[in-house]
Amino acid sequence: MLIQMKNMSELMVDLAYSALIFNNREIAEEVKYLEEKVDELYVRIQEESIKQAVDERNPEKALVIIRLATSIEAISDSAVQIADVVLRDIEPHPILRESIKESDITITIGRVSDKSILAGKTLGELNLASETGMWVIAIKRGKKWIFGPTENTRIEAGDILLAKGPIEGVPHFRKLCSGKDKKL
Amino acid sequence: MLIQMKNMSELMVDLAYSALIFNNREIAEEVKYLEEKVDELYVRIQEESIKQAVDERNPEKALVIIRLATSIEAISDSAVQIADVVLRDIEPHPILRESIKESDITITIGRVSDKSILAGKTLGELNLASETGMWVIAIKRGKKWIFGPTENTRIEAGDILLAKGPIEGVPHFRKLCSGKDKKL
Repeated sequence: MLIQMKNMSELMVDLAYSALIFNNREIAEEVKYLEEKVDELYVRIQEESIKQAVDERNPEKALVIIRLATSIEAISDSAVQIADVVLRDIEPHPILRESIKESDITITIGRVSDKSILAGKTLGELNLASETGMWVIAIKRGKKWIFGPTENTRIEAGDILLAKGPIEGVPHFRKLCSGKDKKL
Repeated sequence: MLIQMKNMSELMVDLAYSALIFNNREIAEEVKYLEEKVDELYVRIQEESIKQAVDERNPEKALVIIRLATSIEAISDSAVQIADVVLRDIEPHPILRESIKESDITITIGRVSDKSILAGKTLGELNLASETGMWVIAIKRGKKWIFGPTENTRIEAGDILLAKGPIEGVPHFRKLCSGKDKKL
């Protein structure tokens, strides 16, 4: 559960910055929704670890776990605050948006054409992250979003991929999406 | 300054988890040290943005900037709390350590042999992140650490690289370090 919480909090931070860069309410709302899930996990982790501490008559493990869970929960709260800038309709300054886009690790989007080698493959089959450095953190399919896709998520032609990675990986990623680059 | 703060907070979270995985005090202490730098940046950002708001008679931009800086500062505080588990000499449970290691995004180490193609090259020349998905977040050289290396940092034979990336990228990364794999 702690690892699940860690993964969710990291996704939330990435999505919060994405919401800011693309001034996108839907992404910002997902961050708020994930916060509820993290809170539920947090409560469950506290319950389980205290129960176990009592059973095993050993408070130390519970202390570490709760301490870590509290820190992770705080990270997800910060992500909500970042997303909240978008939800409150405060227009982030274009310079700010540009500089987040131009930092070493950036977030980009790519539309998957029907000529793209990504179309029809799962993220697990592609190993996109280890081959190109780009992590798909969300997919927009038609009007729907898939947030935090797994290795079993299949990319379809027409998808818009939201990906995080090194800025020097962006051109290749976009060409993979458009179908210009035929090799990972 | 905000982007610098964002980058530092992300490095801090990565280092905090690294400290936990490898039960390493030096890495945990670096997180504490970086927190001081983040705090300094935070104060300066507040000063500058309020000054600018007064000059331009426009409070909105300052509000967004300070809001974001506050969220980023909170993330770096959480990183310190995670690192603090190591500094307080609480032994993190081995299962916990293993599960962080085995999550989709992991942290690993590799020792650079003199046969490695990485030796003698800068991180910028290698484009390691976009070629392999692995981000070097710290380098141990002899007894010294280089935290948050830049694209101009040159890898030397004997270095121990601390890298973050997709778990499926780990074997290739380790073979690049040992010299078994000759191609990125």
